[in-house]
Amino acid sequence: MDYSFVKGHGTENDFVLIPDANGRHELTAEQVARLCDRRAGIGADGVIRVVRTDATEDPAAVAARGQARWFMDYRNSDGSLSEMCGNGIRVLGLYLATHADVDPREPLLVATRAGIRTLTFDGDRITVDMGAPEVAGETKVTVGDRSWAATRISMGNPHAVAFVDDLADAGDLRTEPEYDRVAFPDGANIEFVVRRGEQHVALRVHERGSGETRSCGTGACAVMVAAALADGAERGTSYTVDVPGGTLEIVWTPDDRILMTGPAVLVAEGVTDL
Amino acid sequence: MDYSFVKGHGTENDFVLIPDANGRHELTAEQVARLCDRRAGIGADGVIRVVRTDATEDPAAVAARGQARWFMDYRNSDGSLSEMCGNGIRVLGLYLATHADVDPREPLLVATRAGIRTLTFDGDRITVDMGAPEVAGETKVTVGDRSWAATRISMGNPHAVAFVDDLADAGDLRTEPEYDRVAFPDGANIEFVVRRGEQHVALRVHERGSGETRSCGTGACAVMVAAALADGAERGTSYTVDVPGGTLEIVWTPDDRILMTGPAVLVAEGVTDL
Repeated sequence: MDYSFVKGHGTENDFVLIPDANGRHELTAEQVARLCDRRAGIGADGVIRVVRTDATEDPAAVAARGQARWFMDYRNSDGSLSEMCGNGIRVLGLYLATHADVDPREPLLVATRAGIRTLTFDGDRITVDMGAPEVAGETKVTVGDRSWAATRISMGNPHAVAFVDDLADAGDLRTEPEYDRVAFPDGANIEFVVRRGEQHVALRVHERGSGETRSCGTGACAVMVAAALADGAERGTSYTVDVPGGTLEIVWTPDDRILMTGPAVLVAEGVTDL
Repeated sequence: MDYSFVKGHGTENDFVLIPDANGRHELTAEQVARLCDRRAGIGADGVIRVVRTDATEDPAAVAARGQARWFMDYRNSDGSLSEMCGNGIRVLGLYLATHADVDPREPLLVATRAGIRTLTFDGDRITVDMGAPEVAGETKVTVGDRSWAATRISMGNPHAVAFVDDLADAGDLRTEPEYDRVAFPDGANIEFVVRRGEQHVALRVHERGSGETRSCGTGACAVMVAAALADGAERGTSYTVDVPGGTLEIVWTPDDRILMTGPAVLVAEGVTDL
């Protein structure tokens, strides 16, 4: 067994973290797929290599040097690179606050491929400044023979948010829904949403490269933005977003940032030779 | 993180092993379910507590004292007790041969709730003496609106083996097939089988308490017995049994024992507080 890992989850969106402060464990796509294999590997929705920004030549890390000490090198379970994961970054934050010299009384800046993100800690609840949403107009998503109007929203990564009558209408989300490949040249995460009450919605999600997951942090933010726009909600209004694996609280601030608050849990740590 | 675990698999039937030589980690059903949870836990088809027979009062371990030093305390992913698992016992054997004072050049006797089992090692291939099969006549299994004749076979645990035209006919095996609850008062593992060639079959399985799995060792043995009976095969004939996660070689010996040979892999080890 020749390198370390930590397993954790945020609202049951689960990750294998590879502690790699000094940048000695560049991961191949095949290795990420092996780690994420839920039978032959450890099993996870994605892998997060935790590396110092001055110990990797990833352009996003290089650009953040001097501002952020740590880089979130995030991969989907199929091994593909991803910009950012809002649940994963809380798990990374908890890992750094418990295993590295990060003081949870201070805001923590983390470099990601979607830019620098700021975390604040309140016990086991962690708030992530997810940055500004970009609303890019209408599109359409299709499952089987049913289609819905959807809103294109970028949270650093691309989303299509569709309001549906019943979450079961989205069917079997192990299969990727159909969507506009011209509007989404790099693929898309697809969220299906129902209303549960005032400022309270629930979602299911197909994550690009990972299939249906129990939660998607950026997806929950995109859903909150779509709901707040539909409601004409005042900025600063907090929304409760239920995901299959738990609950997130999300605010769209007057200065156009999305603040997402939720839990993070570390469940195991050890060594592997996958 | 307060106790140790090892994760491994045999033909992608995967297990969390809890090393517990001295019997200090009795597991609750809830704890097993937490360990096996594939998002909020470590994730596995089952848990194997590895305990010395003189360090537990489990009746199967007590009965084996003096003959077998180690007891396989096996639980399904829902926390229920199980008699025996033919893939799990290879993983347990590999764990003992690499982590305990077990010499892989000698046969290893392991106590299980289905009786004592003997393992022999040949590199990373491990042969398990699965004991004598009991063939208990015909029954029927049903998926949706389709039913098939099936053979009732016990390998220490109960099986119903149905030959089908195509493995896809068994449909979505996350849901338990219907079967005769009077014939199987303790539940049953249900195998669906197709022929691939001479002495060569392939299966899918719904494991009692775990759902569809990538492999089931006792199920592969039950399938081999049903195939050998249908073929009128001479005792000692070796069958190749393809399971979704790999391949097993199985022989029904002239003295009525089933010998199953297959791989075992340990992929990770560490600590957890689940």
